[in-house]
Amino acid sequence: VDRQAGQEAARYLDTLTKPKGSLGRLEAIAVQLATITGQVKPRVSPPGIIVFAADHGVAEEGVSAYPQEVTAQMVRNFLQGGAAINVFARQIGALLEVVDVGVAQPLEASGLVSRKVRYGTANFLKEPAMSQEEAVAAVEAGIERAEALIKRGIKSLIVGEMGIGNTTASSAMLAAFLCGEKIRGSAELDTEVIGQIQGVVGPGTGLEQERVNHKRSVIVRALALHRPDGNKPLDVLSKVGGLEIAGMAGAMLAAAKHRIPVIVDGFICTVAALLAVKLCPRVSDVLLAGHRSQEPGHQVALSLLDKEPLLDLGMRLGEGSGAAVAFPLVEAACRMIGEMATFQSAGVTDGEGA
Amino acid sequence: VDRQAGQEAARYLDTLTKPKGSLGRLEAIAVQLATITGQVKPRVSPPGIIVFAADHGVAEEGVSAYPQEVTAQMVRNFLQGGAAINVFARQIGALLEVVDVGVAQPLEASGLVSRKVRYGTANFLKEPAMSQEEAVAAVEAGIERAEALIKRGIKSLIVGEMGIGNTTASSAMLAAFLCGEKIRGSAELDTEVIGQIQGVVGPGTGLEQERVNHKRSVIVRALALHRPDGNKPLDVLSKVGGLEIAGMAGAMLAAAKHRIPVIVDGFICTVAALLAVKLCPRVSDVLLAGHRSQEPGHQVALSLLDKEPLLDLGMRLGEGSGAAVAFPLVEAACRMIGEMATFQSAGVTDGEGA
Repeated sequence: VDRQAGQEAARYLDTLTKPKGSLGRLEAIAVQLATITGQVKPRVSPPGIIVFAADHGVAEEGVSAYPQEVTAQMVRNFLQGGAAINVFARQIGALLEVVDVGVAQPLEASGLVSRKVRYGTANFLKEPAMSQEEAVAAVEAGIERAEALIKRGIKSLIVGEMGIGNTTASSAMLAAFLCGEKIRGSAELDTEVIGQIQGVVGPGTGLEQERVNHKRSVIVRALALHRPDGNKPLDVLSKVGGLEIAGMAGAMLAAAKHRIPVIVDGFICTVAALLAVKLCPRVSDVLLAGHRSQEPGHQVALSLLDKEPLLDLGMRLGEGSGAAVAFPLVEAACRMIGEMATFQSAGVTDGEGA
Repeated sequence: VDRQAGQEAARYLDTLTKPKGSLGRLEAIAVQLATITGQVKPRVSPPGIIVFAADHGVAEEGVSAYPQEVTAQMVRNFLQGGAAINVFARQIGALLEVVDVGVAQPLEASGLVSRKVRYGTANFLKEPAMSQEEAVAAVEAGIERAEALIKRGIKSLIVGEMGIGNTTASSAMLAAFLCGEKIRGSAELDTEVIGQIQGVVGPGTGLEQERVNHKRSVIVRALALHRPDGNKPLDVLSKVGGLEIAGMAGAMLAAAKHRIPVIVDGFICTVAALLAVKLCPRVSDVLLAGHRSQEPGHQVALSLLDKEPLLDLGMRLGEGSGAAVAFPLVEAACRMIGEMATFQSAGVTDGEGA
């Protein structure tokens, strides 16, 4: 990143025809984008959206309000343009790509990018979700697809997901990152740790309280079984993670390498961002948090990432939808610094106190 | 408004390919827009933006960080396309109109709509800001301009303002609405009322604390002198208001009449909305609050209006800029209900618990 470009952008903002600082967060975004891209007048359009789809063996434990077949059905919906992310992608003029990294059934459809690493993860209540080799392959698929879109000219990236059961995997991963040694090190999980784990498990797509409790129990048992090491991201990913989460993290790694700003979506995406940051801490520099999801673990994940979201609209859909809805704010920040007149060029008298 | 269309929209939302309620506030917006327009699939594009410009005699008391000449200079900036509102208007594809309802100097410029009621208000520390006839004329100018844009096909309305000194007028108006009898009725303003008045006065474009205190004193003295009746909106407007605030309220009256949704901007615009609602309570039905301004009185005004803003980004620029930045969220709500596939049309299995 380029701190100097950021400082130059901050100085330039104060010459524009507005009271200093009066565009609030939009000004901070403009400075961050300048720092990321090295451009005082950064650009984020056109954005690219990659939706990674994969299934979760743990779905067979009844941790989702929807049956597993919905993953593949929604992939077809994406390809037909009928899902929320399609609608929002059209609104913001995004290039949208759908990648199968691990849907449980064979899928071939026009427009689908197939990078299937395996047919869904294993049920991590019984065995590790995947091998470390598979985890790496899914991360690499994400890197490859992001680089392909970057070559096609996208100036910012949104990553979304579809995978029935993936809030369960995300909660398990987040708990492993959050509790670290307390999960890996101790012979038995104590009440405090169990409480922390349970605190990052929520209703996902809409479970009732009784089934949230069951989901909590599944996650606690899985973590007690595998004892993932929160400091080893691939250990966490392979034991209790998901293939689409791996792909999302890979895409963020590629974006960071190419200095492409990433607008982070909700809970699952933020856990993928944590994974990416664990793999490479400098990824954090290119991340902007798009929105705060209603899923309770999301605020915990945002705090670990030290990011404040732009929107707080009670959304909890995934697919990248919250980030896509937040995108116009980031675009507004770019247009502001790119297009506004200065006090001098417009012949406007600057303020004193401001 | 059409409650039945709203209910129908709410039912239809639950058939779309997403967990029920998972788009949070966007779903509530879609229902509100359906209720306003009577359309289950409402439209808000293209939006129209009207920026009303006028000067304030009270500016001579040193209540702004900028000199009065900036009002006219910024009008020229609007006409040249260099201000924040121009940039955001282009982003959202808005029809933008600039109306002079009372700039203190003669202004003629290509593209400017001249509806000058008088050359700035009088200094309300000494005399009423304007006559009731002038107040009505400015409201009518707003009605006329909004109807002209509605005839040109806008599907939603944003009203903005430019007027050095207008947070002073807005704070005075808000205090009058807030304190009501306590200002009008009592022979002397007691400490509690003075505290309430002071609580809705802030730094505006960027005053330092000492000058905020001066601004507070000016407003308290003006209210003690004129004792406007908070239940008589034209009394408040003519004694301590502004011509652009009148124009904005008029435009909202017209929008309400024609069932055009209005996205409310920051502090001054929200005070204009309160004025419009006092003139005609049903205006409230068509209002959506775009954002929460940093100006401290804004939250008070929003509470009186009983509206929760979409954005909270620490903005405080005015011109309609916060509403324009919020507009894509409203557009997203329309596109969501207008374009998403249903579970049935997409062949996706609906959830159980959701």
